[in-house]
Amino acid sequence: MEFTILRVNMTTGECHFEPLPMTYAGLGGRGLTSGIVAAEVDPASSPLGPRNKLVFAPGLLGGTNCANVNRISVGCMSPLTGGIKESNAGGVPGGQLAALGVSAVVIEGLAGEGCWRMLEIGKDHARLVPSTVHGLNNYDVVSRLVERYGRHCGYISIGRAGEYRLAVSGIAFTDQDVRPSRHAGRGGAGAVMGAKGLKAVIINPEGSPPLPVKDAEAFERAAERFAAALKGNPISGAGLTNYGTAVLVNVVNEAGGLPTRNFRQGRFKEHEALSGETLHRLTKKRGGKVARGCMPGCVIQCGGTFLDRKGGYVSKWPQLETVWAFGPNAGIDDLDMVARYDRLCDDVGVDTIDVGCALSLLMEAGVLPFGDAEAALKLVEEIGEGTVMGRVLGSGAAITGKVFGLRRVPAVKGQSLSAFDPRAIKGQGVTYATTPMGADHTAGFAVAANLLNVGGHVDPLGKEGQVALSRRMQIASAAMDSIGLCMFAGLAILDNPEMQSCLADMLNAKFGLTLGVDDIADLGKRVLRLEVDFNRRAGFTEAADRLPDFFSDEEIPPHAEKFDISAQDLDSVLKF
Amino acid sequence: MEFTILRVNMTTGECHFEPLPMTYAGLGGRGLTSGIVAAEVDPASSPLGPRNKLVFAPGLLGGTNCANVNRISVGCMSPLTGGIKESNAGGVPGGQLAALGVSAVVIEGLAGEGCWRMLEIGKDHARLVPSTVHGLNNYDVVSRLVERYGRHCGYISIGRAGEYRLAVSGIAFTDQDVRPSRHAGRGGAGAVMGAKGLKAVIINPEGSPPLPVKDAEAFERAAERFAAALKGNPISGAGLTNYGTAVLVNVVNEAGGLPTRNFRQGRFKEHEALSGETLHRLTKKRGGKVARGCMPGCVIQCGGTFLDRKGGYVSKWPQLETVWAFGPNAGIDDLDMVARYDRLCDDVGVDTIDVGCALSLLMEAGVLPFGDAEAALKLVEEIGEGTVMGRVLGSGAAITGKVFGLRRVPAVKGQSLSAFDPRAIKGQGVTYATTPMGADHTAGFAVAANLLNVGGHVDPLGKEGQVALSRRMQIASAAMDSIGLCMFAGLAILDNPEMQSCLADMLNAKFGLTLGVDDIADLGKRVLRLEVDFNRRAGFTEAADRLPDFFSDEEIPPHAEKFDISAQDLDSVLKF
Repeated sequence: MEFTILRVNMTTGECHFEPLPMTYAGLGGRGLTSGIVAAEVDPASSPLGPRNKLVFAPGLLGGTNCANVNRISVGCMSPLTGGIKESNAGGVPGGQLAALGVSAVVIEGLAGEGCWRMLEIGKDHARLVPSTVHGLNNYDVVSRLVERYGRHCGYISIGRAGEYRLAVSGIAFTDQDVRPSRHAGRGGAGAVMGAKGLKAVIINPEGSPPLPVKDAEAFERAAERFAAALKGNPISGAGLTNYGTAVLVNVVNEAGGLPTRNFRQGRFKEHEALSGETLHRLTKKRGGKVARGCMPGCVIQCGGTFLDRKGGYVSKWPQLETVWAFGPNAGIDDLDMVARYDRLCDDVGVDTIDVGCALSLLMEAGVLPFGDAEAALKLVEEIGEGTVMGRVLGSGAAITGKVFGLRRVPAVKGQSLSAFDPRAIKGQGVTYATTPMGADHTAGFAVAANLLNVGGHVDPLGKEGQVALSRRMQIASAAMDSIGLCMFAGLAILDNPEMQSCLADMLNAKFGLTLGVDDIADLGKRVLRLEVDFNRRAGFTEAADRLPDFFSDEEIPPHAEKFDISAQDLDSVLKF
Repeated sequence: MEFTILRVNMTTGECHFEPLPMTYAGLGGRGLTSGIVAAEVDPASSPLGPRNKLVFAPGLLGGTNCANVNRISVGCMSPLTGGIKESNAGGVPGGQLAALGVSAVVIEGLAGEGCWRMLEIGKDHARLVPSTVHGLNNYDVVSRLVERYGRHCGYISIGRAGEYRLAVSGIAFTDQDVRPSRHAGRGGAGAVMGAKGLKAVIINPEGSPPLPVKDAEAFERAAERFAAALKGNPISGAGLTNYGTAVLVNVVNEAGGLPTRNFRQGRFKEHEALSGETLHRLTKKRGGKVARGCMPGCVIQCGGTFLDRKGGYVSKWPQLETVWAFGPNAGIDDLDMVARYDRLCDDVGVDTIDVGCALSLLMEAGVLPFGDAEAALKLVEEIGEGTVMGRVLGSGAAITGKVFGLRRVPAVKGQSLSAFDPRAIKGQGVTYATTPMGADHTAGFAVAANLLNVGGHVDPLGKEGQVALSRRMQIASAAMDSIGLCMFAGLAILDNPEMQSCLADMLNAKFGLTLGVDDIADLGKRVLRLEVDFNRRAGFTEAADRLPDFFSDEEIPPHAEKFDISAQDLDSVLKF
């Protein structure tokens, strides 16, 4: 069984493997999670009810020795947006599932109130067992499970936020140091896992057969060329490796597009304190790791470990969006505190972006002052404590905005925006508005051409070209997320026809196909069509593809720009 | 100026009267609020932003001596549903505005953060003045304003809930005893008033000119026949007068359609303790008022005053939906406590239905046990205190369900259902699902034919006839809400062609028209079309016209019924 789905019914306790249905042929990763959700979930279902499904799927090239291709997609109907959701993460489990020959794990039904289960997956077997770790947060969950199952296993888990079924709870995946630091954070997949009563998944890779590849030699050749090109790219090969994704803090700040104090300004005076350069320096000084891949096979290595002043482990390197959400957007200029929020969020299992945005809304509401890092810490701690405030914060920006009667709530389809102001980086604004995922920057990273001159250059402040840019990036993302490739490797490909060919060559060599580069774009379009169609059936119209009106009402300094891409233009983005 | 609009710009402070634009001709009450909102509010606006408008409008016959016709409609884009909203109330201000010749008051713009204003309206003048009562709840607001302006004025106000811009905050209107006991409770109009910075409206009726009536004699004749018929009707003339709307507690319980403990059962064993009969008995015993109209000109008199054991005023008679929401649905069997919740909600200014539903969700979440009346009281008190829990509760059932990660959340378009289970009273289920207002029973009171044999009889448990019933009732409601007639007078008309003619006669006599009975239904259709169209532009599709899936998944005892009206049938309701 080369392509196998594992179906797990939480209601009956049954687990069974089945061949991948033909209708899903050619899909992997996001393509497969979205394909299964679109075909098997009635959009009239409650996201927390028995008829929603939670799908895990490695990418089409997952488990191979292609560089940077072991990401894992999680799909479901989102309790946050009410639409289809895919969120992907690095870590170890994606490659392990692929190596075991599992194209997707589909979690169905509900275990029942108060009933917690764990799923064990190994070579040709899977079973549900009673949970021994519910009530714990992710770091403790993994410690306990490692004692029982060992460090060679991969772990997928939810913290208390998922148990509480909070709308921005995520799912944690263990990294190469067996820490639950990689997250499918966005859209509340953790709440779906919690509603189903699934606390953790243990993947034992022992006995994984050699991965079937139709033409191993051709694959190897393409994979080597691909990895070499990736290492040679200035962004993926140097900037990210040394400074993490926070390398963009200064870039975005300089562009005037770093949302500050709940999107009131585009620059943060204290940005240097939070930059990738500072992150690098502190890490070196304290003896932390620089350049650590989030998943096996990574040649970019944008991760690292953040240590405290005494050299104790705090968290993995906080990513740009986390640094931004708890930094400039909250008026906080302390990287040590940001790392602590990151750890807390990873541990309890919530999306740092939506929680950070919600925190800055509490500041806007006067619950705490902007910049009060200690008060912020206490609030973030409340998520795990399950206080009402913690639950509100853990429900994300849109709900927090409602509860506190706020108007300037930076969210689309219920999901918060992230580190790029749509008024100063307009291509990104187009993606926020139109992606079927809610305001997710990774769904179409227009920042590339707007700020980095990658994939062309489109003036970030102009109207010209933003629609085409966002469309191109959304198609590319849908394809890369289906292949299992990380976003930064995807960026490196944009200007490199040679790498694009390598990717097609690898798919052809693995599956015995004759794809060209255009077919990869077609894959992206196919996936987007599935997602747009699901959302349409779930009740989304063009009216949901809009930014909150304050972005068109208020100018952002320093460029004094408003978001002025017309409704008609927005409506054309995903028409192809 | 027979038809005059008063426009109040909160941003500039300007107030000016203008003739009713021709495009709104023939509209009053709900028809006029919905007409103005549909034409003047961009559905892409934030409900709490400067581009939303808040509209007050008496009905077409408001201010006349027709019986039961002085209700006042409030319209806006709802912060709760995101769609168009009309909520109407009894009280004194509706008739007073009509008598002053004001067809509508349109509140525009925002006063600005922390700036509170009051609006004084008198004969031919209106002005904004600084608020002297913000921070207070409705009962204190009215006491203070009465000291300053006198008991002859009518008062419209928000409590702290509106100041907090909570999503289910309502707007209070003073009754004939100058108490803020009548509420446009549903859909968060109070939050819109709060966002605009308008704390209160004072209406001084002095000098109101005689109401222009084209044929006073014909009007008088029709009005007399109308009132006599209303008094002769067994429901409007006796049951409601003696027992209030709570007369339906036993009826709905007997039908197995009284949702109990968050919609888990259809009967409440202790229903007698909460019945209209008990309400009547307690009131008589304690010396409270029985049979008090909520507005001038009422001949039904379904109101009363509820006194505590020592004879002190607690609240107006709680209505059926309040009794239900805080009674059976919360497992509470104590009418004295229900009256206290009612008073607290009226005072702070929130919808008793949505807050009661949210309370029972907190019980479902285990925050407090079902039936714990004292713990419930403390929670309701928290709304005014502005605690996080109070804010969540004051944001209504849908938000509370999100924050506590619940699945069985009885809401449509973000608004909670009320005292009639859609599985045991299916015509009402059709209305909940399809009205543009969110799950609002008053938008099409199918209970009439399902349980009361008014307007025909349709088996409440069958599928047959429910769509036609809900459609007929929704059209009738839209017309009655536009005329200013109360729902119970509207019910009396259903089986009485003579009364229908009287209504046409009165409209003809007042405005010099030649309407027939069919024209009244056409008015209802016109209003519904405006509303449906606004919601469509705001992004609503058929997918929003559905009940939560647990109503089709779970049977309700004792009839073991599910909600089984098909999607296709639901989609046909408002197609005419």
